[in-house]
Amino acid sequence: MAKDKKLVEAITSMEDDFAQWYTDVVKKADLMDYTSVKGCMVLKPAGYALWENIQKEADARFKATGVENVYLPMFIPESLLQKEKDHVEGFAPEVAWVTHGGLEPLQERLCVRPTSETLFCDFYAKEIQSYRDLPKVYNQWCSVVRWEKETRPFLRSREFLWQEGHTAHATAEEAEERTELMLNLYADFCEEVLAIPVIRGRKTEKEKFAGAEATYTIEALMHDGKALQSGTSHNFGDGFAKAFNIQYTDKDNKLQYVHQTSWGISTRLIGGIIMVHGDNSGLVLPPRIAPVQVMIIPIAQHKEGVLETAAKLKEALADFRVKVDDSEKSPGWKFSEAEMRGIPVRIEIGPKDIEANQAVIVRRDTREKQIVSLDELKAQVANTLETMQKDMLERARAHRDKHTYIAKNYEEFKETVAHKPGFVKAMWCGDQACEDKIKEETTATARCMPFEQEKISDVCVCCGKPAKAMVYWGKAY
Amino acid sequence: MAKDKKLVEAITSMEDDFAQWYTDVVKKADLMDYTSVKGCMVLKPAGYALWENIQKEADARFKATGVENVYLPMFIPESLLQKEKDHVEGFAPEVAWVTHGGLEPLQERLCVRPTSETLFCDFYAKEIQSYRDLPKVYNQWCSVVRWEKETRPFLRSREFLWQEGHTAHATAEEAEERTELMLNLYADFCEEVLAIPVIRGRKTEKEKFAGAEATYTIEALMHDGKALQSGTSHNFGDGFAKAFNIQYTDKDNKLQYVHQTSWGISTRLIGGIIMVHGDNSGLVLPPRIAPVQVMIIPIAQHKEGVLETAAKLKEALADFRVKVDDSEKSPGWKFSEAEMRGIPVRIEIGPKDIEANQAVIVRRDTREKQIVSLDELKAQVANTLETMQKDMLERARAHRDKHTYIAKNYEEFKETVAHKPGFVKAMWCGDQACEDKIKEETTATARCMPFEQEKISDVCVCCGKPAKAMVYWGKAY
Repeated sequence: MAKDKKLVEAITSMEDDFAQWYTDVVKKADLMDYTSVKGCMVLKPAGYALWENIQKEADARFKATGVENVYLPMFIPESLLQKEKDHVEGFAPEVAWVTHGGLEPLQERLCVRPTSETLFCDFYAKEIQSYRDLPKVYNQWCSVVRWEKETRPFLRSREFLWQEGHTAHATAEEAEERTELMLNLYADFCEEVLAIPVIRGRKTEKEKFAGAEATYTIEALMHDGKALQSGTSHNFGDGFAKAFNIQYTDKDNKLQYVHQTSWGISTRLIGGIIMVHGDNSGLVLPPRIAPVQVMIIPIAQHKEGVLETAAKLKEALADFRVKVDDSEKSPGWKFSEAEMRGIPVRIEIGPKDIEANQAVIVRRDTREKQIVSLDELKAQVANTLETMQKDMLERARAHRDKHTYIAKNYEEFKETVAHKPGFVKAMWCGDQACEDKIKEETTATARCMPFEQEKISDVCVCCGKPAKAMVYWGKAY
Repeated sequence: MAKDKKLVEAITSMEDDFAQWYTDVVKKADLMDYTSVKGCMVLKPAGYALWENIQKEADARFKATGVENVYLPMFIPESLLQKEKDHVEGFAPEVAWVTHGGLEPLQERLCVRPTSETLFCDFYAKEIQSYRDLPKVYNQWCSVVRWEKETRPFLRSREFLWQEGHTAHATAEEAEERTELMLNLYADFCEEVLAIPVIRGRKTEKEKFAGAEATYTIEALMHDGKALQSGTSHNFGDGFAKAFNIQYTDKDNKLQYVHQTSWGISTRLIGGIIMVHGDNSGLVLPPRIAPVQVMIIPIAQHKEGVLETAAKLKEALADFRVKVDDSEKSPGWKFSEAEMRGIPVRIEIGPKDIEANQAVIVRRDTREKQIVSLDELKAQVANTLETMQKDMLERARAHRDKHTYIAKNYEEFKETVAHKPGFVKAMWCGDQACEDKIKEETTATARCMPFEQEKISDVCVCCGKPAKAMVYWGKAY
């Protein structure tokens, strides 16, 4: 490995400086680049291909639950943004304003959507008249803008790509069902496709979405012990419906307000993939999401038959996303590049291998090498990809569990947050004063009240009053 | 038909008022809706599904030629937009300006991208150093904003969805090759997938893209005899490279400027599909792009076995995009709705059909009915969809050819433009003065100089001087 490492520019070791390691990886794995506009990035082919695969997998899952895709404008008139009080308070401080169209000043300024609740409400108010028009289960894939002061690639940028689902239902029960359905869909998607284990739970009042009655969240633990909010699903009740007057006539010919939800995941998930699976040689991509699953690297490719055999192997492996690196670089360099880019499996094939009717398979995550007969290559690659996918989830789960602590009193809590990066499970009275105090004194925030509650003690870890819920606490991105 | 027509709200007949017919169809086929922001529309599920299918088909074709997808920011700093003189002159008057981020005024205002040449150039200037970095063949699917005064759904809106490819090459020849490759790809896509025949040609200097050396275009003829520019491909030569200083070191270690191209198609194509194929009962969708290809409509669905058989047929037809309309509306209403939405094939199945082991297949374009044995249903549906796809292209081609005229002198030209909606083929001297005069006196513009040139006469149709090229002229959207 030492020799390989010299071949590509070394990246900072994550033990030395996790933040720098992250920045190095996103750059050197060629996922993104910075631009002249602060906080706005270029998603390069390797980064965008990850997003395309996320879109494809998630979109199919959405559609299987009846979601239909639409596209709404990127501009929101200021008066529309202001219709729901909590919502505008939450977003107005961080939106970008368009004030001129062409050479003329606009009569009313427009914000570039930070999220599209208000637009969907405006649309639904016209679309929905009768119970026959319900439910509406719409989603859009688009970019949104939030004028953040501090930005980091994928984790927090001024413009980012996401999907936002917005639904309207006849009853509160149906809206609640959809909110939970999508949260669980996100969680399953993260675990099955991205190999990222998540805690499913509910946000506290303090942490919930601006305008929501309830926000559900999936929280993942990164390699450095910090939490990443990885997807959220909101139940709005009829709050937006009342602000925007979205009413329908029910079967008894009575006017009723609709009940609404919204839910989203974003390119932030790419940050999660990096920080859950990456190592000191770069990215490690779960096979199911990897744009290139198998890289065939010819050894001594100038020798007769090597490139031809590599091409034949590529054809034999056409069921997978496979490439041959027949560039003029050295094999060692190519190994390191494939590692840096996180390609799950590399296959080495040279003249001696061809003679022996075999190839070498190397797994990216464990670096385990296997000599495989060419006749069994396809089966073995399939097997390796599948095993790697499972192992990555299990490894991430083990890491998370190992870094999940319990605190029974405030001393323990502070001690743990200060010295043991990870989740802390502790009881809470439900009072925001305690949440505020904890945040101020430890910088940890309430990540969520998990659906799977445990009773750690009877009293709040902070104030000692009777506890209402067990909470996952942690420092977060 | 008379009876069916009463069932859905009548649309204006296209012979009476084509513009109103168009507006009626886009609304009643449920493709889009207007919003509070003038010129910005909602793409509803039926409209967005068309765009998804266009994306899917076109994207696969792009990737087969080596295109990689990326995503660049939506904001362009004013100083960046101004780097290429012709380009800024072309676009500055119609861009939307962001002047505030959050509560602060910006130091430099940002325009919302009307197109992304300048951003790609800024990016390529950093990315490209050596001949080894070339070619770059990148594309993005995104929305763009142009502050148009007059807007029409799909044809001209302030925000619209499109793809924009941007490439950089080592040589002028390679850039020219890519420019033509993409133009031909667009043309084939329109003909094979959208059943829209197009003229492939080159734009005049007056009509070319701001900053381009050459613009190639595909021009389609709408049902009303007006032209629709349906896709363009631009060769920039090294003009942008010089403005943005995009240089690479060649194999001899010499600094060279890159040669660039860009090319795009947009949701405008949906307008084209409507205006080429639609009729007085609504939309007619080419099977290859139709979100729903087959609608099964049960007759007397309350009777035993009808809905069960419809569901079985749906399963048997799972190779197609198929739905059952089991809503509570009458069959006649459902027929009209399926017609309005342009669904290529409807299948009627009722108790008598079930008894006779048959179903009725109706083609949307010709309304031809066929009684088909259920055992042959799948084969017959496949056959009908294929035949319909071919017939639609041939019908559109016949319509276009019938409305393509030849003018040998200016009197003929003016007479034709005034009274015969369609393309006029006529010779041109190459002088912009003639082009300007023709536009002013007839409102016709030079649509393109077709790649397949014909010699109609030796002299310019306008000034009588020696002709340089045969031009397709027409009134355009």
